[in-house]
Amino acid sequence: MKTLIKNGTVVTASDTFKADVLCDDGRVALLGEALDVAADKTVDAAGKYVMPGGIDPHTHLDMPFGGTTSADDFESGTIAAAHGGTTCIVDFAIQYRGESLRKGLDNWHAKAEGKAAIDYGFHMIMTQVDEGRLAEMDKLVGEGVTSFKLFMAYPGVFLVDDQSIFRAMKQAHHNGAVICMHAENGPAIDIIIDEAKRMGKTHPKFHSITRPSRLEGEATSRAIALAEVADAPVYIVHLSAAEALEAVREARDRGIPALAETCPQYLFCSFEEHMDQDGFAAAGYVCSPPIRPKWHQEHLWRGLRNYDLACVSTDHCPFCMKGQKELGKDDFSKVPNGMPGIETRLHLLWEGVRNGHISMNRFVEISSTAPAKIFGLHPRKGTVAVGADADLVVWDPAKELVLSHKTLHMKVDYSPFEGRKVLGAPAAVLSRGEVIVENDKFLGRAGRGRFLKRATHAR
Amino acid sequence: MKTLIKNGTVVTASDTFKADVLCDDGRVALLGEALDVAADKTVDAAGKYVMPGGIDPHTHLDMPFGGTTSADDFESGTIAAAHGGTTCIVDFAIQYRGESLRKGLDNWHAKAEGKAAIDYGFHMIMTQVDEGRLAEMDKLVGEGVTSFKLFMAYPGVFLVDDQSIFRAMKQAHHNGAVICMHAENGPAIDIIIDEAKRMGKTHPKFHSITRPSRLEGEATSRAIALAEVADAPVYIVHLSAAEALEAVREARDRGIPALAETCPQYLFCSFEEHMDQDGFAAAGYVCSPPIRPKWHQEHLWRGLRNYDLACVSTDHCPFCMKGQKELGKDDFSKVPNGMPGIETRLHLLWEGVRNGHISMNRFVEISSTAPAKIFGLHPRKGTVAVGADADLVVWDPAKELVLSHKTLHMKVDYSPFEGRKVLGAPAAVLSRGEVIVENDKFLGRAGRGRFLKRATHAR
Amino acid sequence: MKTLIKNGTVVTASDTFKADVLCDDGRVALLGEALDVAADKTVDAAGKYVMPGGIDPHTHLDMPFGGTTSADDFESGTIAAAHGGTTCIVDFAIQYRGESLRKGLDNWHAKAEGKAAIDYGFHMIMTQVDEGRLAEMDKLVGEGVTSFKLFMAYPGVFLVDDQSIFRAMKQAHHNGAVICMHAENGPAIDIIIDEAKRMGKTHPKFHSITRPSRLEGEATSRAIALAEVADAPVYIVHLSAAEALEAVREARDRGIPALAETCPQYLFCSFEEHMDQDGFAAAGYVCSPPIRPKWHQEHLWRGLRNYDLACVSTDHCPFCMKGQKELGKDDFSKVPNGMPGIETRLHLLWEGVRNGHISMNRFVEISSTAPAKIFGLHPRKGTVAVGADADLVVWDPAKELVLSHKTLHMKVDYSPFEGRKVLGAPAAVLSRGEVIVENDKFLGRAGRGRFLKRATHAR
Amino acid sequence: MKTLIKNGTVVTASDTFKADVLCDDGRVALLGEALDVAADKTVDAAGKYVMPGGIDPHTHLDMPFGGTTSADDFESGTIAAAHGGTTCIVDFAIQYRGESLRKGLDNWHAKAEGKAAIDYGFHMIMTQVDEGRLAEMDKLVGEGVTSFKLFMAYPGVFLVDDQSIFRAMKQAHHNGAVICMHAENGPAIDIIIDEAKRMGKTHPKFHSITRPSRLEGEATSRAIALAEVADAPVYIVHLSAAEALEAVREARDRGIPALAETCPQYLFCSFEEHMDQDGFAAAGYVCSPPIRPKWHQEHLWRGLRNYDLACVSTDHCPFCMKGQKELGKDDFSKVPNGMPGIETRLHLLWEGVRNGHISMNRFVEISSTAPAKIFGLHPRKGTVAVGADADLVVWDPAKELVLSHKTLHMKVDYSPFEGRKVLGAPAAVLSRGEVIVENDKFLGRAGRGRFLKRATHAR
Repeated sequence: MKTLIKNGTVVTASDTFKADVLCDDGRVALLGEALDVAADKTVDAAGKYVMPGGIDPHTHLDMPFGGTTSADDFESGTIAAAHGGTTCIVDFAIQYRGESLRKGLDNWHAKAEGKAAIDYGFHMIMTQVDEGRLAEMDKLVGEGVTSFKLFMAYPGVFLVDDQSIFRAMKQAHHNGAVICMHAENGPAIDIIIDEAKRMGKTHPKFHSITRPSRLEGEATSRAIALAEVADAPVYIVHLSAAEALEAVREARDRGIPALAETCPQYLFCSFEEHMDQDGFAAAGYVCSPPIRPKWHQEHLWRGLRNYDLACVSTDHCPFCMKGQKELGKDDFSKVPNGMPGIETRLHLLWEGVRNGHISMNRFVEISSTAPAKIFGLHPRKGTVAVGADADLVVWDPAKELVLSHKTLHMKVDYSPFEGRKVLGAPAAVLSRGEVIVENDKFLGRAGRGRFLKRATHAR
Repeated sequence: MKTLIKNGTVVTASDTFKADVLCDDGRVALLGEALDVAADKTVDAAGKYVMPGGIDPHTHLDMPFGGTTSADDFESGTIAAAHGGTTCIVDFAIQYRGESLRKGLDNWHAKAEGKAAIDYGFHMIMTQVDEGRLAEMDKLVGEGVTSFKLFMAYPGVFLVDDQSIFRAMKQAHHNGAVICMHAENGPAIDIIIDEAKRMGKTHPKFHSITRPSRLEGEATSRAIALAEVADAPVYIVHLSAAEALEAVREARDRGIPALAETCPQYLFCSFEEHMDQDGFAAAGYVCSPPIRPKWHQEHLWRGLRNYDLACVSTDHCPFCMKGQKELGKDDFSKVPNGMPGIETRLHLLWEGVRNGHISMNRFVEISSTAPAKIFGLHPRKGTVAVGADADLVVWDPAKELVLSHKTLHMKVDYSPFEGRKVLGAPAAVLSRGEVIVENDKFLGRAGRGRFLKRATHAR
Repeated sequence: MKTLIKNGTVVTASDTFKADVLCDDGRVALLGEALDVAADKTVDAAGKYVMPGGIDPHTHLDMPFGGTTSADDFESGTIAAAHGGTTCIVDFAIQYRGESLRKGLDNWHAKAEGKAAIDYGFHMIMTQVDEGRLAEMDKLVGEGVTSFKLFMAYPGVFLVDDQSIFRAMKQAHHNGAVICMHAENGPAIDIIIDEAKRMGKTHPKFHSITRPSRLEGEATSRAIALAEVADAPVYIVHLSAAEALEAVREARDRGIPALAETCPQYLFCSFEEHMDQDGFAAAGYVCSPPIRPKWHQEHLWRGLRNYDLACVSTDHCPFCMKGQKELGKDDFSKVPNGMPGIETRLHLLWEGVRNGHISMNRFVEISSTAPAKIFGLHPRKGTVAVGADADLVVWDPAKELVLSHKTLHMKVDYSPFEGRKVLGAPAAVLSRGEVIVENDKFLGRAGRGRFLKRATHAR
Repeated sequence: MKTLIKNGTVVTASDTFKADVLCDDGRVALLGEALDVAADKTVDAAGKYVMPGGIDPHTHLDMPFGGTTSADDFESGTIAAAHGGTTCIVDFAIQYRGESLRKGLDNWHAKAEGKAAIDYGFHMIMTQVDEGRLAEMDKLVGEGVTSFKLFMAYPGVFLVDDQSIFRAMKQAHHNGAVICMHAENGPAIDIIIDEAKRMGKTHPKFHSITRPSRLEGEATSRAIALAEVADAPVYIVHLSAAEALEAVREARDRGIPALAETCPQYLFCSFEEHMDQDGFAAAGYVCSPPIRPKWHQEHLWRGLRNYDLACVSTDHCPFCMKGQKELGKDDFSKVPNGMPGIETRLHLLWEGVRNGHISMNRFVEISSTAPAKIFGLHPRKGTVAVGADADLVVWDPAKELVLSHKTLHMKVDYSPFEGRKVLGAPAAVLSRGEVIVENDKFLGRAGRGRFLKRATHAR
């Protein structure tokens, strides 16, 4: 099948140029001026940008957490992603305590198969690191699961100790995997939470107050130090705090392979605006690390410009206000942690282009190319180049949109950005050469997405 | 005229992919798999890389200096450049004291016209900054001379004071130009030189010893501070010292638009190996800033990896040992400052790819894409993209070369890298779609190169 | 003559202890519990602290500047100092352009002799640095003038270029002197002032606005770099800005002998409160470096705690509002630069003790011991120790004072701290064992003060 | 009883002055010139310095460790200390797992009572931090045990987790105690040790190799971060590594109350000279943190000059080569950790004075005044001032000594400094006014030393 995108301006991580793009058999076959070739389908991209589809390296679809389950499964979640211009995700499979990695991975394969509308890969969350599981890591790497996530937070649930972390990193040094890290000092945070609860604090804003940014900075430093000694790359997930960024920067300045992502909620939400308000609405912004005071935002934007932050993911992990978030009505620590975002990442980041925070090329890099490179999907994904998968977004910079949970496609009863007007949105979205969204209509189908065997990390 | 490059692997600043490249009418017209089109000329690039031709943003051809003139004129210099895979240079026109900028620019236009074998632009060196010349700056920007160089060294010759620097930067803030800076504290250095001479020091190594790296660091800090207050970008030329890099890094970490280039001589030569030796050979390595102790090198490589150093230029300014360098036989301060390099930049940087210092994409970026972007030549130059000038190098990673002034094409009687074996060299070089070098034979002609009107700096 | 101070608590830079102090023949003779000795005069210090008298290492008495002369001469100035608990000053003699250092020094000796009520030394301001004056530096060091001040600001008046600075520093390296530096990039600042004036800005607040803190940071960095290469200590006078402090800190962390003082006006006045107000009152706060935005203050206090700032001097250089400050009624750049402060330094710093910024011992150190050590007056001055000059202040922490130009003794028609209530003031002040102030009555006499031959700087 | 020290030069942390010192009833009664008073005992200090006796805030006397017991008990250890000029120690009582703090403290009181020849205090080592023990902390503070030590190393023995650390710090915030921290990431280190052992490494040098300095840096950062969030001071014991110092410096620059000590073994021993040698002698240098590569030393000296390191303690914990160190003959991890040093601290630090690393005043400060201030013993101990305990050392700068275990008084069969010649040693040592060592003869007696109730930390 051939699809021809005419009259557009191609944007990659480094270049911007007018060219027609011919997709053939799922891949980009030809880039040229005024291509005069027959095609099964033609998309007119005049006045629009042709960019690699977004890659979201951090989603939690169909994930049990805090006594409930994230509201989007692989069907609704990936369809929402597609609507937002994202054509590939890397979700997190979980090895629960007592399970093998294999078992955890199989569970997640089952959740995704037949449901995903776009291509997907898996990171593997490990809650135990012992000889057996270290051996399993190597096997999974062979099967294209080349990144493993560990938690320095959530004692009793996900937390692993420094010895486990260091062991996993040493294994990664040998097998080429990347260790992804949730970097907050959970044990200390839990003391602070207990204290707040003993003092009768219940409002969701205490979720932010009891997780000081300094303790994200600490854990980030520690993760990097352990990785440095183990001689393995480390990827800090959902970095939210200036102190954590400073730790990453310091390491990178010394040439240490410390990588980090942030998320739109940390770039666009603040404690002052979203947490420190009467009523329960703040619960919709409860995620970990928490929403920070506003001054952190400029640091994050600068980190994105300066290459200290490599990517922007979503940490999409939606819970409805009704029935889910309200589990924490009387106890902020019971509010399920997570926010919806898989659909609105590109819209929001494009605001960063419009107001001069980042260039258009850097937009492409942080939302697609860099995740592809870091997680072993490049050059198959993450760029517009001959031979690459034709996962493309035709971006209309003139298209206005008012963000609302009523019109967005995520299965959640609120939007953290309700009513926000954005300028710039997908006109069409292609997955492997096939138009799956056009004019906000979903033309794809659940189950079309394929599992991606990812390569190991090229340092 | 059409040229078809078959079977190669295209490398850009961000991507690497197998594709044939069709050049038509001087520009890249088509990128595709197994292109089946007629062409006037076909180059087989099997096993080779197709990259944007090198852009050298710092050369001094036909330049009077220290009582003599740099050994290459625009003909020999650009032909040598082409042999080395460089298809575009930005040379420095000089406004001497008492002259108008116009006069200086005209002089250099005259030097280049009819001689240059590849496309070229000019930076403008200013030795006086007053109302009249500030007004001239704006005019020159309109004519495509969008960068101006000032010296913090060479009192009595090129040095301008902080007031002049600051004035020029404020003008650049308004007219979009970039200020290029030779950052060494020349006034202090001259005191140290005088002292060394009074103590009877004559050997060329005292050129290095009397120009401490701390004073390059100082001047770099100062240039950045002045630019920061003037709210203008600054581009530090030929950065050689860890202290200077630290100043750039500190500013960049704060989001200040401080840019810098280094040169191969600072990456590959050291005080210990090349200056601190008996006899007069060290004179061949006399340049300013001087060759530094070896420990600086790893900082420079890291700076290149980390984006703190944006480009690698050559500061090509060759003087023959016989008749030129030997002017300083008895007085190190009389050795003409400068080294040949326009031809060997890519060969040497490729060593950096081979030994893991930089990736192939970063090689393309620092030698071509970044200079094009910084100095207003992108997207016309500096990439392999539809619509861009077909300035290309077909790079053969398996081609061995022994560097020697006998076989290199620069008009100078020695090579700083004499006898060094390198692996990787151009198989063919194209300028605007025309093969001008193939199998080490020059197929172009003097006068073919065109003056490039450059755009202003996009921050 | 013997003076006995009974029942007090002695405070030195490191210790606090109850002891009686016997002064004999101008020096501290005995420290002990309940001393039972005969004395000519007894001071009861019960409930009070016995501390070394303040040493103010930065005053400008009887100094011509900006077309007028600072309002206090050596008589009124030193009597005011004594009232404030300061028993020793180091004032600045000036070598004007064309004069010898000798001539400048003689002028200042003449100004002080027969007038000073407390002991005094001189720094020497140099406006020219050539062979002859370098030789004179050595001679002056031999006469106890062991510090020399240079200006990086005030082009055409005091400014010397980097070459002069570097020469003087190299001389200091040999002769043991300290170079004191006014660190602001005056040439760049003058451009900004001209621009503001062309735009019709006249209000005194533009004095602050046109002297950006970044340019104090720059000059401080440069001064330190030059000193580092010259291998000489440098002492930054009246440091006002966080950026400058950062430069000092960075150097000190590397072990470089970079020293700095700040002044009470930078610790207690702010742009927001004192400059950015309607009317002409802001002229009373015009000094250079200028009063800064408030956020700088916490950095300065931390610098004092952390030893990055060594001393607090006053830069006392008073001009009356009437007839002096009003020279700049229509042109901020014509307001004479300077503020009164010689009398109120200890009162204000004691506020820093009361609110926890500094300890009582650190109070003594920054106001007396450190200046004495840095400028070659220790152990003769700057401490309460056997054998030291009995320059002492008996400090009553319970004594309230309302600062007002009406009751203070400086000859100036306003106070920057008018109406400010302070708690803590001298009950008695001794100069070489003689009580010269008691209960706010001056018991000394003009001409009693002696010129102090200072030793060279002990690194 | 009265003791008169005649003709000496008194040295305090800030001052140096000639004075006679009269001690009466155990305290300093009078400081004066040529004191003409009757005394029971007179010491001639002509040509000598009279300084506060050393305070060693880190000793392990009579401590069970690694299957054996440190070789000095409170009798031999404190007598050795006295010979070296140290007149006060703070030793570590241990709460073993399952014990109450009370029980641990009682045990150590029993070890010291009747044996100590000089005054002593206790820090309390905690191996469990729960509600009960937190309450006990407050009680012990009331009894003058105002500092508590925790370990981030030695899993299974002393290690406590971050939650325990954070809890203890929050308690310290309330009760005024200082938390002392052994900062090495023990869990990660244990993995490295296991790996080395699996690879057949047995030589004692692997003790150093398996404890990378980066992991001391990490733990130091973490301890400081936790303390910062808990708003409590933290005191890093036996800091050995540049990375750890950097963490302390960074915090102190921000005004955080992070304190640290180093030890003579880290200033004078190096991996290259003492660990990386054939045979088993390296076992004599096995301590934790380990002896580091030589380049760390200059950082430590600079830290001492710059106030980033507050004190020098000994971590005296001697084990004989015979019967003790040789437990690790075939397994480096079985070598008991610890080195002798209580007697030689001042001799070695004086070398730092002689070669210009530190001033004489700073020598006094780091070896006596600062530990006294930090640990609540000042002004009773740690200075030469009226009213202070007359714990004094009369230091003869001309006295030569060859360090050897044969002549030193510590009960251990080797000296890490065997054969080293030092210049400068105690001529006499006084404890509370009584001469307990004179001409290398011990005149005191076991049991004379008293337990010191210490005050809480004054921030």
